[in-house]
Amino acid sequence: MPPTPGPRDILRDLESPDMLVPPATDAGLLPNLEFSFSDTSMVLRPGGWSREITARELPVATTMAGVNIRLTPGGVREVHWHIASEWSYMLVGSARVTAVDQRGRNFIADIGPGDLWYFPRRLPHSIQGLKDGCEFLLLFDDGNFSDLNTFSLSDLFAHYPKDVLAANFGVSASNFNCLPSGHQGTVPGPLESEAVQSPYGTVPQSFRHRLLAQKPVVTPVGSVRIVDTSNFPVAKTTAAALVEIKPGAMRGIH
Amino acid sequence: MPPTPGPRDILRDLESPDMLVPPATDAGLLPNLEFSFSDTSMVLRPGGWSREITARELPVATTMAGVNIRLTPGGVREVHWHIASEWSYMLVGSARVTAVDQRGRNFIADIGPGDLWYFPRRLPHSIQGLKDGCEFLLLFDDGNFSDLNTFSLSDLFAHYPKDVLAANFGVSASNFNCLPSGHQGTVPGPLESEAVQSPYGTVPQSFRHRLLAQKPVVTPVGSVRIVDTSNFPVAKTTAAALVEIKPGAMRGIH
Amino acid sequence: MPPTPGPRDILRDLESPDMLVPPATDAGLLPNLEFSFSDTSMVLRPGGWSREITARELPVATTMAGVNIRLTPGGVREVHWHIASEWSYMLVGSARVTAVDQRGRNFIADIGPGDLWYFPRRLPHSIQGLKDGCEFLLLFDDGNFSDLNTFSLSDLFAHYPKDVLAANFGVSASNFNCLPSGHQGTVPGPLESEAVQSPYGTVPQSFRHRLLAQKPVVTPVGSVRIVDTSNFPVAKTTAAALVEIKPGAMRGIH
Amino acid sequence: MPPTPGPRDILRDLESPDMLVPPATDAGLLPNLEFSFSDTSMVLRPGGWSREITARELPVATTMAGVNIRLTPGGVREVHWHIASEWSYMLVGSARVTAVDQRGRNFIADIGPGDLWYFPRRLPHSIQGLKDGCEFLLLFDDGNFSDLNTFSLSDLFAHYPKDVLAANFGVSASNFNCLPSGHQGTVPGPLESEAVQSPYGTVPQSFRHRLLAQKPVVTPVGSVRIVDTSNFPVAKTTAAALVEIKPGAMRGIH
Amino acid sequence: MPPTPGPRDILRDLESPDMLVPPATDAGLLPNLEFSFSDTSMVLRPGGWSREITARELPVATTMAGVNIRLTPGGVREVHWHIASEWSYMLVGSARVTAVDQRGRNFIADIGPGDLWYFPRRLPHSIQGLKDGCEFLLLFDDGNFSDLNTFSLSDLFAHYPKDVLAANFGVSASNFNCLPSGHQGTVPGPLESEAVQSPYGTVPQSFRHRLLAQKPVVTPVGSVRIVDTSNFPVAKTTAAALVEIKPGAMRGIH
Amino acid sequence: MPPTPGPRDILRDLESPDMLVPPATDAGLLPNLEFSFSDTSMVLRPGGWSREITARELPVATTMAGVNIRLTPGGVREVHWHIASEWSYMLVGSARVTAVDQRGRNFIADIGPGDLWYFPRRLPHSIQGLKDGCEFLLLFDDGNFSDLNTFSLSDLFAHYPKDVLAANFGVSASNFNCLPSGHQGTVPGPLESEAVQSPYGTVPQSFRHRLLAQKPVVTPVGSVRIVDTSNFPVAKTTAAALVEIKPGAMRGIH
Repeated sequence: MPPTPGPRDILRDLESPDMLVPPATDAGLLPNLEFSFSDTSMVLRPGGWSREITARELPVATTMAGVNIRLTPGGVREVHWHIASEWSYMLVGSARVTAVDQRGRNFIADIGPGDLWYFPRRLPHSIQGLKDGCEFLLLFDDGNFSDLNTFSLSDLFAHYPKDVLAANFGVSASNFNCLPSGHQGTVPGPLESEAVQSPYGTVPQSFRHRLLAQKPVVTPVGSVRIVDTSNFPVAKTTAAALVEIKPGAMRGIH
Repeated sequence: MPPTPGPRDILRDLESPDMLVPPATDAGLLPNLEFSFSDTSMVLRPGGWSREITARELPVATTMAGVNIRLTPGGVREVHWHIASEWSYMLVGSARVTAVDQRGRNFIADIGPGDLWYFPRRLPHSIQGLKDGCEFLLLFDDGNFSDLNTFSLSDLFAHYPKDVLAANFGVSASNFNCLPSGHQGTVPGPLESEAVQSPYGTVPQSFRHRLLAQKPVVTPVGSVRIVDTSNFPVAKTTAAALVEIKPGAMRGIH
Repeated sequence: MPPTPGPRDILRDLESPDMLVPPATDAGLLPNLEFSFSDTSMVLRPGGWSREITARELPVATTMAGVNIRLTPGGVREVHWHIASEWSYMLVGSARVTAVDQRGRNFIADIGPGDLWYFPRRLPHSIQGLKDGCEFLLLFDDGNFSDLNTFSLSDLFAHYPKDVLAANFGVSASNFNCLPSGHQGTVPGPLESEAVQSPYGTVPQSFRHRLLAQKPVVTPVGSVRIVDTSNFPVAKTTAAALVEIKPGAMRGIH
Repeated sequence: MPPTPGPRDILRDLESPDMLVPPATDAGLLPNLEFSFSDTSMVLRPGGWSREITARELPVATTMAGVNIRLTPGGVREVHWHIASEWSYMLVGSARVTAVDQRGRNFIADIGPGDLWYFPRRLPHSIQGLKDGCEFLLLFDDGNFSDLNTFSLSDLFAHYPKDVLAANFGVSASNFNCLPSGHQGTVPGPLESEAVQSPYGTVPQSFRHRLLAQKPVVTPVGSVRIVDTSNFPVAKTTAAALVEIKPGAMRGIH
Repeated sequence: MPPTPGPRDILRDLESPDMLVPPATDAGLLPNLEFSFSDTSMVLRPGGWSREITARELPVATTMAGVNIRLTPGGVREVHWHIASEWSYMLVGSARVTAVDQRGRNFIADIGPGDLWYFPRRLPHSIQGLKDGCEFLLLFDDGNFSDLNTFSLSDLFAHYPKDVLAANFGVSASNFNCLPSGHQGTVPGPLESEAVQSPYGTVPQSFRHRLLAQKPVVTPVGSVRIVDTSNFPVAKTTAAALVEIKPGAMRGIH
Repeated sequence: MPPTPGPRDILRDLESPDMLVPPATDAGLLPNLEFSFSDTSMVLRPGGWSREITARELPVATTMAGVNIRLTPGGVREVHWHIASEWSYMLVGSARVTAVDQRGRNFIADIGPGDLWYFPRRLPHSIQGLKDGCEFLLLFDDGNFSDLNTFSLSDLFAHYPKDVLAANFGVSASNFNCLPSGHQGTVPGPLESEAVQSPYGTVPQSFRHRLLAQKPVVTPVGSVRIVDTSNFPVAKTTAAALVEIKPGAMRGIH
């Protein structure tokens, strides 16, 4: 009889040989430390999809949640905000991001592969896929965060009676007969065509950082790019390292 | 650009096509409902291995935990007990199980493929692989259970000073110089050779049930064998159904 | 300067003179014990409205929640179920209620003023206003219950792909193109015209009790009708008393 | 049959017409956001009364609790302290407040209508009604605070044996035969007559702020006075705005 | 330098030599399992004293709390009730206990050394020391119980306005001018002189059990008296054993 | 009959006469505020012993835990680290302590009677008894800390496969055949012989403070030495006072 005679999932077993046959020094009872985006349920939306790994999937991750998002060309995550901060890394393609801070200062930038961006807690922001669309990774500083439960501007408008919106903006209620759904879009034009001049100016620190443009620290086993408040000062709640390891090399115990 | 241009785990994506592209009626935010034994870390022991899925891996499973165990020929889970009840299903091979209840009545039986057994909470019991060894599935009625934290008889003995053990059993302390480790074993002989005559008799209800020997209820989509207190009265905390579905057929919504 | 010189809500002060000027024997720090349906936010629905008082409004009420519901003539609370049991008292008007238990036995009855009904936990049921509509009070045995979060049959259907529904019921998918919204209705005809013959028969114990038809116990201070499992056996989780006190009389300390 | 045929509290319904008939854009399930001091139970004390709204009455208010207090002429809240900070607004009348900080520096001031005061956490302080008494509003930075559970100097003295107090102050135990109850008082004389010269001086930042004396920011819809650490630096845990809205005008959505 | 050169409490060290020098088989980290009544703070009351060990002193004891009480001759624990059940063992002296159940049936008995009594949850009862007073041990089935927080009849009366008490009992309010404090007493006369004839009769099962009168089971190491629902049926939540061990003998591991 | 006629522990009663007969001003229900190291279970180790008082023994101590440790001459607490900070006071004897901070800067010092030391959270450190051994008191800033659950360097090594250790350090795996147990030792030589020159230098602030060398503040009732960040700046989470009171004198109420 083979060592695992019962029913098994051989493809998964092949992915993690050290979990199937752990080293003899393993004493057991570590919590699960890994969860694949492929084991999460996609959420399809007009303009793209998203899938998330939170403390609901990976209970040990109480202090961070990850979301993987795809935006089609012109697909838009409309203006929204959330309590957690948002640290992001562009995997493939490009996007245009905008934000406005609590003093009315605004921000707009285009993000390419290997760029990252960061929006502090509660700051309204939007993301829109550029001509080829994009796929990126978001990291939130709260393991119980859900991207499906954020608060969007169109949600806010939808829950106010039209006469209240009219009184608030000093315009006629008929202006609100056709609120945009916000979820679909066309590919935006050049950055200059969209920039808005705010009377309060622009944000004092950029929300974008070009991580791949950073010169790596090269070591015998590979290279590393570290991003923290020393080179990306606005990202106060998240630091990161992009580590490249040569095949067969080992990142030292730490 | 393909719909999922970023890095992906194609083998896992193939396993769950409805998670990668969910039906349009999916509203999102269901908790994760699946976890593969292949994604858990094995624990190797003399005499076999075990791996477990608990609320630590699958947080939604607060009321049950599953353990998959392999015993080699003669490999033994020595006498131990735990607060959760233990419901079990033999996948492959055969094992000899023993137990003793709180009134000193004992139980011994051999378990074959498709048999199941049930030990109530806190009841001391043991399991030993027979000539080809075995692999089985355990189900505990507590999502936070861990098979690695049960209380075994040899643990108990190891934590008592030898003179206390001697006084307790009324024998010389030297009898306890060489406590068996309990984890290794030789293939046991015939059942009769191991049965012990208890002065209190045997347990009033069998802890074993031959599920596959049960005549199935046949339906147009397949068949089902239901086991609950009506046909396995000792298993008060767990009921189960063995459902076989024909290829392409559907178990009705329920 | 008057005893309460600051701003005040005189109409509310008049409602509770003993809260404004409590007796000298009051030692303080009792939790709030009262919350008016008038201080809750109505939820308007096609077919009526509802408003609820739960542990969110009245934190001391951890073991029960109350909901006040109005159904227009023909207005329907479609088939739904919830974890809490539902005890109900008809204030004004009349309604038709239906239910089916876990063995497929069904129940249908018309409810008039002063009648009450009880549905055990998780039992699917519906309520529909008869010719003048009705207003009633529901009592759930869980302070955190919300009537807005129950699970309805049309919700269930809406979240299944049509081909799955078709496969489940063995009919063509086109039958599900137009699922009824379930929220509107016309006044139902006579009870007999709606009764369905279940192959499993009807429920063994009625879910309706005519409380006002019960002969009251008359005492010097008024009268009382007590309903518990002795006269309404299906209502295992809720007992009640309808107490009428003569003006100026006092229900004894208890 | 009218839309709300059942029993109702019409006076309360009139107070909140948007709760009785909410706008169609209301999606339900907001927690209760309002609780009237008229629905709380007064606590009568020698020298005045108090009533409080805490997380026990309004569960959403986890970060603040409000207390409404009346002191008669000369009525005194004797020296006491609590873990929460105390932010206060004088509604009607005037009071004398005193405090001493952890370095022995003291503070005394008279408070008039529209003045506010602030005592940091754990700082001993007292309040006494001046010639017409007063009524004020307290705001604590803890939703579970209770003014009935604070620690007062006379409580402290009452729980020490007299010989311990005598040893502590180096006086005879007979001095403590008649501890003042602290709850009653006579109208205090001029401020100068009560000021005590502390060897450690006075507190470096005033605990009083004259909010009404502040020049308001005037807008088309009314006016606003904002008080935060920029103009009342000692009040580190509470900022406030006194907003006056013209009849029919609307404070913009924010 | 001696093995424990630092400051130590030699008298306590002598009490538990196995804690000072544990056996080599001790693996550590067991929670504290012992707490002495001598390490608790007495509460002196008119008529006696009490001291208690609860989960506040011994955190492992979540399911039971112990109270040690002394009543002087005639000293009385007046009529009171609590949510936990009360199981009791008379150490020294004798007492008279009374109770009334929820159907108005009453109970009165005299308790001597080695007797025990049991009052179910919420049942009003009283205890009074007889001619030499007594000392007993109470066991409550809730580790967070406190005997100082029970609800007594005189507390109840003290918090009702006198006119409400008068209306309730149908007598003049002047009858309540002088409520007995309940805490002091004179030695009661013979049992017959105090027995009250209830129109509802006496309780169906005695609340008293004479444990010492029970014939012990004698074993080689000593003797044991077991009391459970088989011989004291009213005590549904607590079973006990009075174990006597000969000097040097050992109660077997269990 | 004496006031406490039941069984009692007279030696303990003598230690706390004010608990046996509390002052009449005692109102009861204070949590237990004292726990003796003599009532804890020792843990014997090669090289010494330890015993601890945590929130498990003294539930009120949620913010600190104390450990009493004895090291024999040469006995060593090998390199380890923990989440809580460690504040320490040498009772008797002397020890050598070492540490290394997160920037690789190291620290070594010898500690004598009345000296204290402080290691910030997560900093690796070791302690070794010098020629007469020592006994000291540790204070951790977490009531649930356990010294038995810290993470030691030899534990870390033991759980890595040898080939991983070899790859990490770039040496042959045979170097790890005989990992030192770390628990036993010989008396170390002079400080200079053990000091290691770190390429990153030494820690910027000393982890040692000579408390007894500090000049005390002398008062009529005794003297006090206060240590806080003003004179021991590295100890950011713990301040302390060494108070000496003359016999019969009283430290003032505070």
